[in-house]
Amino acid sequence: MAGNTFGNLFKLTTFGESHGVAIGGIIDGCPSGLSINFEKIQYELSRRKPGQSSIVTQRREDDFVIFFSGIFNGITTGTPIGFFIYNRNQKSIDYEHIKSIYRPSHSDFTYDKKYGLRDYRGGGRYSARETVCRVVAGSIAKQLLKDIKIIAYVSSVEYFSLEKNYRYLNLNSIESNPVRCPDPDISSKMIDLIKKVRKSGDSVGGVISCVIKNVPIGLGEPIFNKLHAELASAMLSINAAKGFESGSGFSGSQKWGYNHNDIFNVDGNTKKNFSGGIQGGISNGIDIYFRVAFKPIATLMSTQRTIDKNENICLSKGKGRHDPCVLPRAVPIVESMAALVLADYWLYGKLTKLCI
Amino acid sequence: MAGNTFGNLFKLTTFGESHGVAIGGIIDGCPSGLSINFEKIQYELSRRKPGQSSIVTQRREDDFVIFFSGIFNGITTGTPIGFFIYNRNQKSIDYEHIKSIYRPSHSDFTYDKKYGLRDYRGGGRYSARETVCRVVAGSIAKQLLKDIKIIAYVSSVEYFSLEKNYRYLNLNSIESNPVRCPDPDISSKMIDLIKKVRKSGDSVGGVISCVIKNVPIGLGEPIFNKLHAELASAMLSINAAKGFESGSGFSGSQKWGYNHNDIFNVDGNTKKNFSGGIQGGISNGIDIYFRVAFKPIATLMSTQRTIDKNENICLSKGKGRHDPCVLPRAVPIVESMAALVLADYWLYGKLTKLCI
Amino acid sequence: MAGNTFGNLFKLTTFGESHGVAIGGIIDGCPSGLSINFEKIQYELSRRKPGQSSIVTQRREDDFVIFFSGIFNGITTGTPIGFFIYNRNQKSIDYEHIKSIYRPSHSDFTYDKKYGLRDYRGGGRYSARETVCRVVAGSIAKQLLKDIKIIAYVSSVEYFSLEKNYRYLNLNSIESNPVRCPDPDISSKMIDLIKKVRKSGDSVGGVISCVIKNVPIGLGEPIFNKLHAELASAMLSINAAKGFESGSGFSGSQKWGYNHNDIFNVDGNTKKNFSGGIQGGISNGIDIYFRVAFKPIATLMSTQRTIDKNENICLSKGKGRHDPCVLPRAVPIVESMAALVLADYWLYGKLTKLCI
Amino acid sequence: MAGNTFGNLFKLTTFGESHGVAIGGIIDGCPSGLSINFEKIQYELSRRKPGQSSIVTQRREDDFVIFFSGIFNGITTGTPIGFFIYNRNQKSIDYEHIKSIYRPSHSDFTYDKKYGLRDYRGGGRYSARETVCRVVAGSIAKQLLKDIKIIAYVSSVEYFSLEKNYRYLNLNSIESNPVRCPDPDISSKMIDLIKKVRKSGDSVGGVISCVIKNVPIGLGEPIFNKLHAELASAMLSINAAKGFESGSGFSGSQKWGYNHNDIFNVDGNTKKNFSGGIQGGISNGIDIYFRVAFKPIATLMSTQRTIDKNENICLSKGKGRHDPCVLPRAVPIVESMAALVLADYWLYGKLTKLCI
Repeated sequence: MAGNTFGNLFKLTTFGESHGVAIGGIIDGCPSGLSINFEKIQYELSRRKPGQSSIVTQRREDDFVIFFSGIFNGITTGTPIGFFIYNRNQKSIDYEHIKSIYRPSHSDFTYDKKYGLRDYRGGGRYSARETVCRVVAGSIAKQLLKDIKIIAYVSSVEYFSLEKNYRYLNLNSIESNPVRCPDPDISSKMIDLIKKVRKSGDSVGGVISCVIKNVPIGLGEPIFNKLHAELASAMLSINAAKGFESGSGFSGSQKWGYNHNDIFNVDGNTKKNFSGGIQGGISNGIDIYFRVAFKPIATLMSTQRTIDKNENICLSKGKGRHDPCVLPRAVPIVESMAALVLADYWLYGKLTKLCI
Repeated sequence: MAGNTFGNLFKLTTFGESHGVAIGGIIDGCPSGLSINFEKIQYELSRRKPGQSSIVTQRREDDFVIFFSGIFNGITTGTPIGFFIYNRNQKSIDYEHIKSIYRPSHSDFTYDKKYGLRDYRGGGRYSARETVCRVVAGSIAKQLLKDIKIIAYVSSVEYFSLEKNYRYLNLNSIESNPVRCPDPDISSKMIDLIKKVRKSGDSVGGVISCVIKNVPIGLGEPIFNKLHAELASAMLSINAAKGFESGSGFSGSQKWGYNHNDIFNVDGNTKKNFSGGIQGGISNGIDIYFRVAFKPIATLMSTQRTIDKNENICLSKGKGRHDPCVLPRAVPIVESMAALVLADYWLYGKLTKLCI
Repeated sequence: MAGNTFGNLFKLTTFGESHGVAIGGIIDGCPSGLSINFEKIQYELSRRKPGQSSIVTQRREDDFVIFFSGIFNGITTGTPIGFFIYNRNQKSIDYEHIKSIYRPSHSDFTYDKKYGLRDYRGGGRYSARETVCRVVAGSIAKQLLKDIKIIAYVSSVEYFSLEKNYRYLNLNSIESNPVRCPDPDISSKMIDLIKKVRKSGDSVGGVISCVIKNVPIGLGEPIFNKLHAELASAMLSINAAKGFESGSGFSGSQKWGYNHNDIFNVDGNTKKNFSGGIQGGISNGIDIYFRVAFKPIATLMSTQRTIDKNENICLSKGKGRHDPCVLPRAVPIVESMAALVLADYWLYGKLTKLCI
Repeated sequence: MAGNTFGNLFKLTTFGESHGVAIGGIIDGCPSGLSINFEKIQYELSRRKPGQSSIVTQRREDDFVIFFSGIFNGITTGTPIGFFIYNRNQKSIDYEHIKSIYRPSHSDFTYDKKYGLRDYRGGGRYSARETVCRVVAGSIAKQLLKDIKIIAYVSSVEYFSLEKNYRYLNLNSIESNPVRCPDPDISSKMIDLIKKVRKSGDSVGGVISCVIKNVPIGLGEPIFNKLHAELASAMLSINAAKGFESGSGFSGSQKWGYNHNDIFNVDGNTKKNFSGGIQGGISNGIDIYFRVAFKPIATLMSTQRTIDKNENICLSKGKGRHDPCVLPRAVPIVESMAALVLADYWLYGKLTKLCI
C-alpha cells in the first residue's frame, strides 16, 4: 500500500512534499479518446489555490499544471498521464523553527515516530499542498464522467449551519461568495466569523455537503466496496476531515424504519432521499448526497504549549500564512475525490453484466 | 474489484448468499505460527447470532464455523484459511412473495438493475447473513493483534444516547445486558424502546461506539490510506451503516483550533483525545475512538406501499423474523471490521522503516 | 499478496491442502448473466483427474465440484462464486514417513524454512492437488470467453518432440490418446517412454504447447502487464513448470530481424507468426502461441539420498501413487490458466477506449 | 491495471512517451531510512544509455535523473519517490514518416487498434525509452537489497553462445567489453557479428543470463506468485523479450527425475542447481539463475514491405539511430527488473511468520 495510490481502475498515484521542487502524480487507467479541456483543470486549481480571497491563506501559489504524457494533441491516448506542478513559493527558512517541535494535533509527531525521520519543511508530505494533485486528477475524472455533476458547498462553519435540504438551495450560487456557501445570509455570517477567527490567530472547523446528480443506476460494488464506503474513505483521506455521513446519516440513526424508508414512485424514483442515492452500496439513480466534517486545522497563529523531539516542553506558533478555515478551499477537493471514486466505479460498471 | 475482498495484506474474501447451502470465505496473508483459539471464534459468532436474546430476531442459526485449511494442529501455517458455515435455517418458501417486489430502501431494486437478476431468497448476497464471515475473520485478526483491545458498544438507540466520554464508562459491563450498552439505566430504556418498536412491526436505528486500546504508534498509511479513512470504509461496508466519525467528529467541526488541539504531555500522551488516537492518518498511541451511525433496517413487519419489477404499485410486508434493531448484533461486526483494518495495518507497519 | 489470488478483474482465490477435508476457491468478478454449463466443468476436471489412463497416477479422486453461491438457476448473478471439492482419497498415514524429511527438489525444505511449520501430508498446500481449483475457474473463464478457443497439447516428452508448426497439426485429435499429443506416431513413442520411466520408479519432463484462436485485437495491458508476460507468470505458477516462450521464443533469439519480422498482409494478418499473436504485449488478432517446459516431478518411486529437518542424511522414496509424467494431466491446467489470463484481459479490454 | 505499475509493496509506477518533454515515475513503498547513493543510480543509467559504445545506437541521451520527493538529506523518508528524466534528444521530425505506417512486428498496429490513436513519435509509450525508469527504480531496489547481488550478462547473440555454467565464469569481467559477455573469445565474436548486422541495416537477437547471489531462504509467495513466475513476468515485460527459463529450464524438460533432482548436502545446500535456487516458488538460499530470450528488434535500417493505416501496401525503413542488438543495453534492465521483484518479495518476507 504505502498509501499514495487512489483508485483501482482510474488510478491516481501522487508524490511530492510541500517544499520540494515540484509535486505531481500519474493517472493510470484513463480511457483513450477523451478530449481534455485544460482550462477546466486550471479553473478547478484556481478554486483550490491559496490567496484567492480575503478569508483564505494569503500565500501565493501559482499551481500551473504541466502534463508530460498520456495526452496527444489534446486527447488522452490510454497511456499514463504524468503531470507536475512547481512549488514556486516555498521558503524553507520559515520552517527551521519547527524542525524538532511536535505541533499539537499535527502530524509531526506521528510521522517522526513512524518513519524515524521526516521532511519537516512546511509539513512535508502531510501538507495539504498534496491535495493539488487530487484536483488535477479529479478534474480529468469530471471530464470523463460527462453528465454526472458533482457539486460541493460549505454547509456549516462552526455553529453557522445551512439546514435546508439541498433541493431547496440555489446550487448555482456557490461560487458567488468566497466561503462557497449557497445562501447569501449564512455565507456572510460565516465570512464574518472566519475574519474574527483569523484575527484571533485561531482556526475553525465546519462541514462540506456534496450532491452528485445524474448518476446512472448501478454504480458501486457491494459488500466491501459499497459506493458510500468508498466515498467515506475518499473524504476522510482529505486533511482535517473527521466525519462522513451519507443520506440521512447520523440523524437517520434516530429514526424508525417506517418513516425512514424511501417509498418508491412508480418510476423507481423516491419522494424523499434518506438513502442518499445509494442502496446496498449501489447507486439507485437518485441524487447522491453526503456530508464531510472538518476539524479546525491544527496550525495556529497563536502560541500553544507543546513538546519537542527530546520530550522538552516548548511553545509552538505558526509562521507564514495559514488558512483560518480550510472549508472554502476544500470544496474543490471534496468534489475531486468524489469524481475519482465515481470514475473508478463508472469503469467497474462496464464489467458488471454480459450484454446479450 | 467486484467488492468481495477486504484488506491488502491480511485479506478476507467472502462468498455466499443467505439461502445457499453455505456461506464462507478465505483469509489470505495471516502469518504462520499463530495459535488459534477456536472457542474465541465461536464466542464472537454467538455474539452476532440471531436468537441470542429477546430483543433480536428469533431466527435460529447455529453458525458453527468449519475450517478447511491453513491451520494445522491448531496453528496457522501461512497458507490460506478456508472456512465455511452452513446456512441451516433457510426456508426459501418464505421469500417467494418478494421475488419481484422492490422493498423500500432495500437493495432489491439496485441489485436487479445492476446485475439484471438476483438471488432474491432472504436478501441473497445483500443479506446481513454475509457478516458472519467477517466475524470469523475478525476473531482471527483479534488473536493476531494480541494486546490491542477492540471494544465496541451501543451508545445510542433512537434518542436514548450515552453521552459520557468512554473513559468514564465501565467497558467490562457491555455484555451484561442484551443491548450491549455499558450503562444500566440507558440500556434498560433502550431495551424497552426496542420492544415497543418490535410490537409496532417497525425498526429503529442507533449508534455504535468503538474504542481501540494499546495501539502501537505508527499504524496507518498516510495520504489515501489514512487509518481513519480505512476504518470509515470498513464500517460503512456494514449493512445499514450511514455515518462514521473519528475522535471529535462532527462536533469537532463546530470548534476552534485552540480548544480543539490536543496538547501533548511530556511523554507524548495527550490530556484529551479529540484526535481519536489518529493524527495525519497515523495512530499516535492513544486510544482510537470512533462512532458508526446505523439507520433503522428497511425490512418491516408492517405493510408499506412499494413497486414491483414491472412498475406496478404493490404492498410489502416482511415475513419471517427480523431484527427490530440491528445494533446489539452489529457490535461484534464493528469490532471485527476494526480488527481486519488493524491487522492489515499492523502488517504494513513491519515494512515502514529499515531496522538498522 | 500471500499468493493465493490470481487475476485482477476475473479473480480466483483458492484455499486447501492436499489432505484437508476439502479444497476450493472463490471466483470474484465474473459478470452476471453467464449461463453455466456444469457438464463442461466436470469434463475439464476429468481431463485433469488422476487415474484417467494407464500412464498417469492411479490414485482415484472423484473431483466433483460443488458450487455454493454466485450461480442462481444456472446463471451467474455477479456475486462471488464459492466452490469446493472434497478430498475423498486422502490417507494421511501414507505421509508420516516424510514428516521431517526434505525430499530432493521438492518444496518440503523451502516451506519449512519459510513458514516454520507445514502440513506435510501429501505435499499439503504445495501438492498439485491445488490445481483442481484452477481447472474449475478456468472452465468458467472459457465459457465466458465464448468464441476464443484455447487448445493445449503435449509437444514433447524428454527427447520425443513434435517439431511441426501447430498449423499443420490436427488439433482435434489431442484427446484421442492418453498423452494428449496430436500426432499418432510420436504420442505412441511418448507413451512407451512414460511406461518405461514408471517401471524404473522415475519421472520425466516435457513441453506443453498452447494455441489460442479467435482472440480479438487489443487484449493485453502494455508496459508491465504485457499479455505474454502475464501468460508466463500464469504458466510458471503451475507446479514443475520451468520455462515459457511465446511465438519464436528462444529460437527467435538466434534470428536476424529481417527474417524474424512478420510481414503484414493487407488485411493486417501476417504470413508467419513469430510474434505468437502478440505485439508490444497486445494481441494482434492472430493465433496466440506459446510453450511451457515442465521438469520431471521430484517425487520418485525409487530411493534417493536426502536430509531431514535435523540435518541428518536419510533416504527418501515416494509411497502411494505418483505421476511418472505430469504432462498429460497438465494440459487442462495450462488451458485453464490461459483462460484465466484472457478472461481478465477481456474484461480490461472493455475499459480501454471511450466509445464515441 | 492499465499496466504501468510494477510490484505490490515496493511499487514502481511510470509515465512517459519517448518524445514527450520528460519521462519518469513514482516509487512507493520504499522503507524510510535508506541512504541513497546517487552515483550508483547514474552508473546504472550509463550502462543502459544509448551511445555508450560502438555497437549500440549512437543516439545521445543524457539520462540524468532528477528526484523530486521522498529523499531528504540523502535518506529515504518513506514517502513516495518521484523522479523524472528529460527527453533531451527527441526530434519529432524524424518520425512523421511513420505516422500512419504499421512497421512489421512492431507495436504500431496493436496500439492503434487498441486505443484508437497513439503518439507515434519515436514509438511513443512503447519505445524502449520507457525502460530508463525501470533502471532508476531498480538501482534503488538494489541498494535496498544490500548483500543480494544481481548479475546479468549476455550469454548468446544469434548462434554465438556461452554454454559454460555461470559458476565457471568470471562474473567480474562482464563490464570489460561492450557486449557484456564475461568471456573474451565469445564476446569478441559477438561484437564482430553485431557490427556485421549493423552494416546490413539489420538486427539480431540473443539471450541474457542472470544470477542472483546471497538470496535469503524463503523469498517468494507460493501458488500464484511463485518467485520464478514473477521473475518471468518481470522479464517478459521488457521490450523484445520472448522467453524465460529458470534453472534447468527447457533443457530440464528432457531429463528424468533421478538425474534432475538436486541432492541436498547436510547443510541444506545442493551440489548442482537445476532448481535455479527456487523450489515450489520459494528461494532455497542457493543462487537464483535464469535466462531471458530476446528477439531481434523490429525496427530495421533496411527496407521492408508493410501496410499503413488505410490498408495500403507501403515500404518501411528506420530512420535515426537504432540498436542492431539490444542485448548489451538490456543487461542493466534485466538486473533492474530482478531487483524490483526481489525488493517486493523481500518486503513480503517480513510478513510471513510470527516472531515469537
